[in-house]
Amino acid sequence: MSERRLRILVVGASGTLGKAVAAELAQRHEVMAAGRNSGSIRIDLTDVQSIGHALKQAGELDAVISAAGNVTFAPLADFKPAPYGESLHTLGIADKLLGQVNLALAARDHLRGGGSITLTTGILSEQPIVAGSSASLVNGAVEAFVRAAAVEMPRGLRINVVSPTVLVEAMPAYAPFFRGYEPVTAARAALAYSRSVEGAQTGQIYKVF
Amino acid sequence: MSERRLRILVVGASGTLGKAVAAELAQRHEVMAAGRNSGSIRIDLTDVQSIGHALKQAGELDAVISAAGNVTFAPLADFKPAPYGESLHTLGIADKLLGQVNLALAARDHLRGGGSITLTTGILSEQPIVAGSSASLVNGAVEAFVRAAAVEMPRGLRINVVSPTVLVEAMPAYAPFFRGYEPVTAARAALAYSRSVEGAQTGQIYKVF
Repeated sequence: MSERRLRILVVGASGTLGKAVAAELAQRHEVMAAGRNSGSIRIDLTDVQSIGHALKQAGELDAVISAAGNVTFAPLADFKPAPYGESLHTLGIADKLLGQVNLALAARDHLRGGGSITLTTGILSEQPIVAGSSASLVNGAVEAFVRAAAVEMPRGLRINVVSPTVLVEAMPAYAPFFRGYEPVTAARAALAYSRSVEGAQTGQIYKVF
Repeated sequence: MSERRLRILVVGASGTLGKAVAAELAQRHEVMAAGRNSGSIRIDLTDVQSIGHALKQAGELDAVISAAGNVTFAPLADFKPAPYGESLHTLGIADKLLGQVNLALAARDHLRGGGSITLTTGILSEQPIVAGSSASLVNGAVEAFVRAAAVEMPRGLRINVVSPTVLVEAMPAYAPFFRGYEPVTAARAALAYSRSVEGAQTGQIYKVF
């Protein structure tokens, strides 16, 4: 079957995962790289105006992918009761959670009909590690949001999330936190983004672990 | 086997669910009722100082239960990209999410060794409804946080969450949102809180649906 060439925006395209996602999809589609400090399009997920500008700059799109999102890793003992802004959860909520949710909401209004949105979480939503409670919180939030948003997306738009385990390429830095976890290559994780963009499902959590 | 009489704080004790939880546990334990506008102890989960005062007022405790938490229900179309404070997700994040997380963190520092914390989510983390995307987001966040916090709790403390489906008692108001959902009585949902408090597991999501 001959495939239509899609216009795809990859946010976080300079990261280990984002690079692999862009490489996988660029074989068949037009991929635009976006990032906070690199890429042809600059985007800061914590800044709603920056999201809007980036989508406008990208022009017509069939898919928006986020392979971005920061959270704070810290022992639970370091988390004190604190309001938003003072809590150690603030970074994760502002960046990986609301940043991706706001990207999805902006993409909902911008994508061509039948387009897709793909966000990123990670194994910690299901399988916790020490010092990962904020990452777990954020990943769990994004996954449940995606499941819910999928049933209300207009114009045939789809939304999914990819939840990879720790990446082979990240093990030099992360191995002490992920002892016993079987890592996957970024290239293998990237296949899940291809499934989301080039498949037909919506509301899915594609687990790569 | 003879059971030890526990001192239990129930937050949201005047609600449909909280009342049933308090009634279930008061048969065997000392239950203190807490609420925003009622109960012997006043507590506002969005106010960290209020949480601290309430725990101090309650004195020594073996269990803290939250059957409280507000979120905004609105169609996805009403959610615009917006930062914390302006987003329609703000209430849910400040109240049901960070409110319960902060209650758990404060309880971690306050409970007697071997005590338990039980939070509340709901079926929407797994099974979405129209206009429920913020509730889903918040419930997913709380569940993943509980799973993660459980592996780092000090002094033998346990933490679980109860996820009930819609309550029989709430159907007069909520039926249009939950067509086809099989409701459970608050009394039946309350049993899951008993399992959490009087059982021995931690990091569990007790689903009542």
